[in-house]
Formats: sequence, C-alpha cells, structure tokens
Amino acid sequence: MSPVRVALLGCGTVGTALVRLLAEQAEDLTARIGAPIELAGIAVRDLSRPRGDIDPTLFTTDALGLVTRSDVDVVIELVGGVEPVREWLVEALRAGKSVVTANKALLAQDGPALHAAAAEGGADLYYEAAVAGAIPLLRPLRESLHGDTITRVTGIVNGTTNYILSAMDSTGADFADALAQATALGYAEADPTADIEAYDAAAKAAILASLAFHTRVTAADVYREGITAVTAADMASAAEQDCTIKLLCIAERIDGAVSVRVYPAMIPRKHPLAAVGEAYNAVFVEAEAAGELMFFGRGAGGAPTASAVLGDLVAVGRNRLSGMRATAESVYADLRVRPIGEALTRYYVRLDVADRSGVLAAVASIFAAHDVSIATVRQDGQGDDATLVIVTHRATEAALAETVRQLRELSGVRAVASVLRVEGS
Amino acid sequence: MSPVRVALLGCGTVGTALVRLLAEQAEDLTARIGAPIELAGIAVRDLSRPRGDIDPTLFTTDALGLVTRSDVDVVIELVGGVEPVREWLVEALRAGKSVVTANKALLAQDGPALHAAAAEGGADLYYEAAVAGAIPLLRPLRESLHGDTITRVTGIVNGTTNYILSAMDSTGADFADALAQATALGYAEADPTADIEAYDAAAKAAILASLAFHTRVTAADVYREGITAVTAADMASAAEQDCTIKLLCIAERIDGAVSVRVYPAMIPRKHPLAAVGEAYNAVFVEAEAAGELMFFGRGAGGAPTASAVLGDLVAVGRNRLSGMRATAESVYADLRVRPIGEALTRYYVRLDVADRSGVLAAVASIFAAHDVSIATVRQDGQGDDATLVIVTHRATEAALAETVRQLRELSGVRAVASVLRVEGS
Repeated sequence: MSPVRVALLGCGTVGTALVRLLAEQAEDLTARIGAPIELAGIAVRDLSRPRGDIDPTLFTTDALGLVTRSDVDVVIELVGGVEPVREWLVEALRAGKSVVTANKALLAQDGPALHAAAAEGGADLYYEAAVAGAIPLLRPLRESLHGDTITRVTGIVNGTTNYILSAMDSTGADFADALAQATALGYAEADPTADIEAYDAAAKAAILASLAFHTRVTAADVYREGITAVTAADMASAAEQDCTIKLLCIAERIDGAVSVRVYPAMIPRKHPLAAVGEAYNAVFVEAEAAGELMFFGRGAGGAPTASAVLGDLVAVGRNRLSGMRATAESVYADLRVRPIGEALTRYYVRLDVADRSGVLAAVASIFAAHDVSIATVRQDGQGDDATLVIVTHRATEAALAETVRQLRELSGVRAVASVLRVEGS
Repeated sequence: MSPVRVALLGCGTVGTALVRLLAEQAEDLTARIGAPIELAGIAVRDLSRPRGDIDPTLFTTDALGLVTRSDVDVVIELVGGVEPVREWLVEALRAGKSVVTANKALLAQDGPALHAAAAEGGADLYYEAAVAGAIPLLRPLRESLHGDTITRVTGIVNGTTNYILSAMDSTGADFADALAQATALGYAEADPTADIEAYDAAAKAAILASLAFHTRVTAADVYREGITAVTAADMASAAEQDCTIKLLCIAERIDGAVSVRVYPAMIPRKHPLAAVGEAYNAVFVEAEAAGELMFFGRGAGGAPTASAVLGDLVAVGRNRLSGMRATAESVYADLRVRPIGEALTRYYVRLDVADRSGVLAAVASIFAAHDVSIATVRQDGQGDDATLVIVTHRATEAALAETVRQLRELSGVRAVASVLRVEGS
C-alpha cells in the first residue's frame, strides 16, 4: 500500500506532539486510513534548533518548495498567522495537496481564498483544530446538524481568557493579578494581546458563524471587545446577580441576517457555560429541531490540538485513497452581517446616584425614552452613597449606548459605575 | 436535478416530526444536498390512523415492497425493534439503498449483518440518532477522534432513567414515586422496562464501544443493571458523599480488552456528568491526546431525533450525488470483551454493625483478604445502631462480590445495607 506522504509546516509544541503521535499510533493510523502515513519533510524557520530524536534530514527552511514537492500528498500547517502561510497553502491546494490547518487567523481573514484554491486543485481543506482545539465541533456543525437550522452559537473559545476570568471569579483577584498568574503558569503568552483583546476569539467566531449559518463571515465582520476592562468590582456585581463573567463569542441568526460578536458578558451560574472553568473551552449550540447542545473539552495544548489535526489527517488520508473529496464549503445562504448597534442582548447597569427624590424617575424615563425596557431595579444605600442596579430586557446595543450617554449627563447620576451585557438567561 | 427519493418506515412521533421538517426545510436541504428530497412512500402498520395533512397516497403497509422499489434511493427507519425490521434493512442495503436508522436495538444485536449488507450493496449505513438522540456524537467518535486513542467513554444515554434519578436526587422521592411522576409527564412509557432495566442503555453502550474502540461489541457483551433497586436511602448516602447517582454506560479499554457495562453508580457532584439533569443526555469521552471531552444535549423526542436523522440524510444524499460512500465500519481492533468480574471500579459499602470490639478489624480483614483496598472508613452511632461506611479504591467486581458475600456471614455485621459503585473520581 503506497503511503500517504505528509509535509509538516511548523514544529513547535503542537508539531512536536504530532510527530510523536504519528510514531506512537502508526499501527492504528495505518489500519484506520488503509495505508501508512509517512513524513515527507518538516519546514521550520531555524534549522539549528534542537529537535529531539526527529530525523534531522526531514527539516528544511523552504516551506514553499516542500509543499509543492511531487512526493507530498498532504500538508499540515501549524505555523499560524496570515503571511507568509497564505501563499504556501494556496499553492499547495492548487497543486492538489490536501491541507489540514489549525490557522484560525488565516481562515477567518482569507477563508474564501483557501476554499477557492481547494476547489481549483481538487483538494481537501480541513481545520477542526482551528476552533476549540481538541473538541470535535466543526465536523458536527458542518455535517451532523446539516439537516437542522442553527439559531445561535455561544462559545467560550479562548482558554487564556477563561483561565483569567475563572481566577478572578474564584479568588476576587483583579485583571492584572489574574493575568500575571496565567502568564506564570503558561496559560498566557509573553505577549497576551491576541488573547486578552479577543482577536483570537473573534477569528474563531467568524469561522463558527460561517459554518453554522452557511454564509461567509470574516474576522472584520466580528464585533470585538477584550477582557482588559473587566474589574474585580464587575465580577463582584456578577456574583451578586448569581452570575459569572465569561468572554463569549456569540453568533446568531436573526431575521435573515447574522450577528457575530465577542465580548465579556454576565451569564447565570446555572447556565452550562458558567461551569466551564480553567482553560477549558465549550460551545453551546441552539438549533430549531435539536434544541440545546453543548460541546466541552480542551481548547489548546500540544497533544489536544494534535489530536484534532490527526483526526483531520485520517479523514484526508481516507478520502485520498478512496478518490473522494470532502464536501465543499457551503455558503449558499449569503446572509447580511448586522452591525453591532443592531445586536440584541440584556444589560446590567450599575449607577452611583444621589439618593434624592426624582432621580429614579429621571433614570427610568431615560431608559424608557430609548425603548430599553427595565426588567429589575434595586436601590441600595442612602444619601450620596446610593447605588442603583438595573437589569434590562433585550434591547439593541445602539439604544443602550445612547441611554448610557444620557445617564452620564443626568445631574442625579454621579457615575455610571458598570455596564455589562447579560447573556444566556 | 433529479431528487433523492426517500422511503420512510414508521410514522410515529419522530416520523411525523421528520415529515414536517422535510417540508419546512425543503429549500435549505436542497441547497445543502445539491438536489431536492422527495418522499417516495411511508410504511405504517395501520392505514386507518389519521396522519394530519400528509399526502394519504404515500402510505403503505408493505414495508419490504417499499424499500426495494426501484424509485427509492434512501430508506429512513424509525420503527424500532429487531424483527421484522432487520429483513427490511438488509434487503434495502443489498439493493443499494442507503439506510438511515435510529434503531439501537437492531444495531446492538445485529450490527455486523447490516454493515455486511451495506458493503454488499455499496450503500451507506448511518445511525447518529441511535445514541444520544440529537447530540452529534457518533460522527465525532467515528471521524474526529480517528487520530486519537479513546480510553474511556462514560455516558448518560437514557433520558427516562436520568429524569427519574434526577427527581429522586432533588426531591428525596423513592423510585416508585419518581417513576410515576416520569410516566405522568410523558418521560416514561407505559411499559418502562426497556428504560428502567437498562436494555436501552445497554444497546447504546454496545454501539458506543464498537465505535470508540474499533471493535465489535454486541448487546449480549454488555453487563447490565437497571435502576429499580436504587432506593431513597442510596440517594441519601450518595448525597452524604457529595455525590449523586446516575445510570452510567461505561466503555473502557484496558490491557487490549474492552469492558462495557451499564449500571447505576455514584458520581461526584463536581463531575461534569453530575450536572446533567432532567431527561438530558451527555457523553464524557477520555482520549489519550485530546484529554476530556463532553457532549451534551437532548437524547430523545420527536424533533431532536428527527434533527439527527436529517443530518444523516443530508450526508447520504450528498454521498449519493457525488458517487461517494461513507467510510465503512472499522472493527480492525477485534478486542476481547472482559467479563464483568474483571471490571475495575470503586465501591461504597454501608454496613449495619454491632458496635463491639473487633467488628471493624474483622470487616477490614475481609476486605484485605480479597485485595479490596479501603480508601475511607467512617463509623457512626453506637450499640446495635452503628453504621460503617466504607469507600474502596479500585477493585474488581469479582473481588468485591466475594467480599460482600463474606461480610454478610460475619457475625458482627447485621446487614449489608447498601453497595454502590463509585465512578468518575
């Protein structure tokens, strides 16, 4: 049986785990694919770095040369980032090499170009590892729920921020301390920007929304807010409401359009996503017929990500041997992306107010004037220390923003101390 | 585009939901498959039963005639049970008609015959709805985790028993009352035997084990204990240990063999499966590289089950149009099934003892004599009302059974009040 020959791009944590698994599982993989897998080469930036017991003749710095070599069947890309990876993958796909990638940034920015190249070359493009690491999620969305209509996807898709927010919730730490702890334990990178500013989660949200709603959503379509502004006081406010705060990626279909956004939000403790702690990921899916589904597991790490890559590799290998191809990208729905101002959610608003007659009435009338309906209101304290806590029904972001703007100008309101979105209730 | 013509066998709750979804989602389904779906006929037992607004000319009582009709491409089977369904599906598959079925009993008893017929006819056999209803579970096990080694699957796969046990846990009700409540609310059937005696869960366990470990496991290989013997006192004992009791299906791979069993067991409240309430299903998967994964959702009901069937139908339809076939059954591992006596778990044992000197020593020495190592022990009460609560480390079922037999004969032991397995810790 002629082997499936694999070019590996990148040999960091995931790549090293993958090479190890390829060796350890060689027998099972051969049985599952119907042919052995053989490493044809590994492209790295630095040839001088020690690579353990991996055959040194496999390494090259010429990624483009490797992926287009005639003896390569499949390309596994674990380098990440948009450039120069895009060219390597486009050329590989055009040359008929199937690609397995974990590159969410590239997929979220330029997915259509990759899919087009795959169609041109008659090759497969698989990317289970790009969202929620080891959790089998994309294939279920793409295939299992094909006969259903997904209405909403709510996910915790970034382990670093979930670790930080979980620590803030359980210890009362503020953001800076929790980030320092995450960095010390290896959950946050030296430059944590992509995680804490939610660029990573936004890319994943774009991929999830595209698959869930059979339409094209790119990273630029995703409204994004990171977690750097979440305070210990916010977390305490959430706890008072029997909630916690999670960085949520939300993709929903409303009136023939999609809304895709990533932001920290309060979520009730009884919601299945609230219990997702540490660096775990989970994605909650609501579908018309299937109802509520949740997928839970490790979102990152060498071995978990390598597991997802290997699952794709087996699929690609089997397709290759049987002359099949994966089902192509399905974007027939072509839905409009709603701007963030149209997004509908509930809000928690905490105001420091002067406790004098008429303030509550003035506050309530500002909410009413913008059609932001109040669900609950609670006033604590007296005199200049009074606090007004308001939770609204669903309203648009635009209406809430204008409400908050006017509240800031109201004479009885000393400060808008906290504004948090409330999801999942 | 020539349509994909579907024969439907059975038109109860799921079948009716399916016919409705086929109509409602016709446009999306056509886009996803690349061709419209057309109902060629519906086989039912009783033609006189009212069928709402479904075209009456579609109905027939001749299931075998329908599935072998030359204008039928795909057969969806929602009748359930082994006979006479087996013949219908075998004949359909042999004739090259792909089959989508929710029939766990048939698959667990005679899966190999169906797979062989599918291979013979060059047809697909899909059965996502057979385990955990709407939860996309089988495809992830079959495909996404293909590159990994699954070590253990622990599932709550029967909604009726989960509803009953959840009610017993939250209200302190005994089994009979909780069953009566489940029956009144429609969660239990008039004859609940298949659910409460765990025949249903055992069939699903066989299917899960086969997929997870690439081997053949039939219902006869599964050790099965229902929940009828679970008492309110057992549930209270579990609560004392910060646990609850769930009917678990467990499939694990140990030393090149598989152990597959279904029984009620204590599970710590902090385990993700403990929070799965009401009639929900969830399956917890442990894999060498991926780590811990969990899949959660609705395990039964018309629309959720129909969603899973539709997902399979789309896959089958796409395969048909592209001339592809699903990957065949993968049973290369051919693992031995361990008898229940070899199963390893922890145990909770509550003894009513006489509080006199020497009893604890005698009890402890019986455990020791059978290599059942004690993890914790607690003695409460005095005189003839003393209770001894022992939680063991992992030991074999055979060793525990022999331990319990000897404890019953010990003069200081007035009764072995409760023996429960402890999983997930």
